[in-house]
Amino acid sequence: MISRLCILGVGLIGGSLALALKRAGGVGEVVGYEREPAYRNKALALGIIDRAETHLPEALKGADVVVLAVPLGAMGGLFREMAGCLPGDAVITDVGSVKGSVIAAACAGLGPRIKDFVPGHPIAGTEKNGPEAAFADLFQDHKVVLTPLPGNRAEALETVRAMWRQTGAEVIEITAAHHDRVLAGTSHLPHILAYTLVDLLAKLGETREALQFAAGGFRDFSRIASSDPCMWRDICLANQEPLLALLERFGTELQKVSEAIRHQQGEELLEIFRRAKTARDIHYES
Amino acid sequence: MISRLCILGVGLIGGSLALALKRAGGVGEVVGYEREPAYRNKALALGIIDRAETHLPEALKGADVVVLAVPLGAMGGLFREMAGCLPGDAVITDVGSVKGSVIAAACAGLGPRIKDFVPGHPIAGTEKNGPEAAFADLFQDHKVVLTPLPGNRAEALETVRAMWRQTGAEVIEITAAHHDRVLAGTSHLPHILAYTLVDLLAKLGETREALQFAAGGFRDFSRIASSDPCMWRDICLANQEPLLALLERFGTELQKVSEAIRHQQGEELLEIFRRAKTARDIHYES
Repeated sequence: MISRLCILGVGLIGGSLALALKRAGGVGEVVGYEREPAYRNKALALGIIDRAETHLPEALKGADVVVLAVPLGAMGGLFREMAGCLPGDAVITDVGSVKGSVIAAACAGLGPRIKDFVPGHPIAGTEKNGPEAAFADLFQDHKVVLTPLPGNRAEALETVRAMWRQTGAEVIEITAAHHDRVLAGTSHLPHILAYTLVDLLAKLGETREALQFAAGGFRDFSRIASSDPCMWRDICLANQEPLLALLERFGTELQKVSEAIRHQQGEELLEIFRRAKTARDIHYES
Repeated sequence: MISRLCILGVGLIGGSLALALKRAGGVGEVVGYEREPAYRNKALALGIIDRAETHLPEALKGADVVVLAVPLGAMGGLFREMAGCLPGDAVITDVGSVKGSVIAAACAGLGPRIKDFVPGHPIAGTEKNGPEAAFADLFQDHKVVLTPLPGNRAEALETVRAMWRQTGAEVIEITAAHHDRVLAGTSHLPHILAYTLVDLLAKLGETREALQFAAGGFRDFSRIASSDPCMWRDICLANQEPLLALLERFGTELQKVSEAIRHQQGEELLEIFRRAKTARDIHYES
């Protein structure tokens, strides 16, 4: 049971975490620290947070758990700011989509309190954002990846594990490097591909007409191109190395498809398409 | 009202067309020509077709409308075979996803009967296939694109228009070249991107684990990678020129994203992502 939870950034993820913990009876008071007045007011009105603070030391006062749920680009500044005003026994965690860059920022900003920082990433979300998009079920049956640091206090890790389990999520622990490599493939690159394709169609001046002729497949494929552009800029910049390696590899594979089409090599195409279908069908039922 | 409809290929599309017309009372008898015994039997058992034929002249006998709903790779052979045994007043149409290549095959195979061939493409489908996936609502509120030929008989065009309207679809008429260019962007390239990405993750040996960490976004994005590999091989080979042009352009755009990530140029990324989000949000509500 968390007596006082301090959520820094009350958007879709931070807001849903608060709602899920409240529903599970896993938290006493929820304090929200949020710079955007509209988000602050909405989060209060929706009962996501019990109290809103705009002064960081005031927000952190008496918190046993502090969750950073701000965009990746804002993490570094917050770690530095909070270092001097963290309660002595507070456990710190985050929900950032890239772990390597957040850990680097935490090391630089938190100093010795890094032992109380357990990096995390709930694999859940929608293309919507803001507190009005938050819902208590967001993490139910989803994975939450923790990438504990070698120096973490065992109690800090256990606190963060227990918090996420109360949201209905399954907690998994892997290294930050592993997380960042896997997510580059299943999340970051797909977003780049969807954004780039929709933008290209827009540039070709055919978007309106093109989308008019688009079937359900395109609607699903392009859904992630409706995601928050600032958040995805931050993710791309933060996961630079794994993404560049994967983009290069993907470019090579796409080149092979082009060559197969150019030389009318049906067997080559069939091999790629079949392997992909098999890989996907094994995992998903539909 | 079509007295006798002959459907060549009783899969998802051919089967759904039969079901939709039957429900609308727009057809007397439906004859199915299907080489795959399992499909044939299933289509009969499900009441999709009233009679199954395996001999083409027998199947075509007395038909007022003949619909080619076979894979693109099988169209050419069928056009040649049917030329000699088409009823004198039969109207012919197809459901192929690429129009230029089908029209070329029809010109070569049908001879003077090309005046009765009205090329068509219903923009509807799922990642499933076969008669058991067919349903009467498939075309409801979807677009059906016709790409009429300059020499088409007016009555032939009107027959095909009326047929599709009875399925609940909206009929649109554009040129074949225009159709093939637009569909390359909204359908063919997205399929290639989804197949290529899932195959790459499989090759990296991380599919199972990768997909385990994948959020809903990836599930939606990759759904089209479960589509029929043979059908998509045929489409890629048939729409060669528009696809190669688009693949090249897409590669250039993706390269720009890579460079922006390499040089940490957030503004460039933000511009692309914002334009894409705007273009998609204008068209879709969610």
